[in-house]
Amino acid sequence: MNEDARRTENLSRTEAEELLGTVSFGRIAFVRRGRPEVRTVNHVLDGGRVIIRTHPGADLIAAVETGAVVAYEADEIDPDRHVGWSVVATGPARVVSNPDEAARYRRWLASWAAGERDFVLMIEPAFVTGIRLLEPDARRPG
Amino acid sequence: MNEDARRTENLSRTEAEELLGTVSFGRIAFVRRGRPEVRTVNHVLDGGRVIIRTHPGADLIAAVETGAVVAYEADEIDPDRHVGWSVVATGPARVVSNPDEAARYRRWLASWAAGERDFVLMIEPAFVTGIRLLEPDARRPG
Repeated sequence: MNEDARRTENLSRTEAEELLGTVSFGRIAFVRRGRPEVRTVNHVLDGGRVIIRTHPGADLIAAVETGAVVAYEADEIDPDRHVGWSVVATGPARVVSNPDEAARYRRWLASWAAGERDFVLMIEPAFVTGIRLLEPDARRPG
Repeated sequence: MNEDARRTENLSRTEAEELLGTVSFGRIAFVRRGRPEVRTVNHVLDGGRVIIRTHPGADLIAAVETGAVVAYEADEIDPDRHVGWSVVATGPARVVSNPDEAARYRRWLASWAAGERDFVLMIEPAFVTGIRLLEPDARRPG
C-alpha cells in the first residue's frame, strides 16, 4: 500500500547545520497573536547563527521584538523522487541593531525584496534537527 | 547596493491556489506550547482543501486536536536566480476521521514516512496568499 514510502533518517546537529549552509533560502515560521506564520526568505550562516533580512513593519519584527522563538526551515527535495533532506533550526531571534554589524550582514545578504531600510535578523538556534528522506531501497544493506 | 533585490508581486487567491496545486510538497507550520514548529510533508489538494499525512503521536496531531490554525507553505524558487513564487494557505486543520474518506485520501497521497497508521489531516484555508519573485528587469514594461 505504501510503495512510495520514504525511509527517514534523523540527522545530527552537525550534519543538519552543514546542509543548511549549502542552500541560500528557507522559510521562517513564527507565532503572531497565537497563530503560525511562515515566510520564505534567503539566509546566510555565521558561526551557526542564521542571518536573514526582512522589511520594516513586518509582523515578523513585531514577533521578534518580544523575544520570540522562531523556527527556520530549509530543504532540498527532489520533486519527483521525493528524496533529499529537511532541516529546522529553532531558537530566539533578534534584530541586529549595531549599525556596523548590520551593514556587514547586508553586504553578505542581498534582500529579495528591495529596500534600504530592511532589518537584519539573527536567529540563535537552540537546536537544529533534520531528516534525510531515502528511497525504500536504501534501507537494504550493501 | 541592492542589485540582487527581487521585485515581489502579490498573487490573488486563485493564482496562489493554482500554484499550490502544481507542486507535491510543502511545509506545515503550527504552534505547539506557544512555539512555532515546521515540518516538510507532501500534499494533495481537494477542492481548495489541503490534504497531508502525518505519523501518529506527532506534535502536529496534538496541536490540531485543539482546533489549531496552521499555515501551509509551498514554493518553487530558482536557487541561483532567486525568482519563482511562494504561497501560504492558512486555516484550521482537522484529522480526517471518517474511514472511507481517510482511505480515499491515502490512495491519493503516499506518505513519505512509511506507516499504515498515519493520520490524514485536512486544512481548510481561510485565506491563501502568495508572492511572485521577479527579476528587477521584469518591472520594465514591454
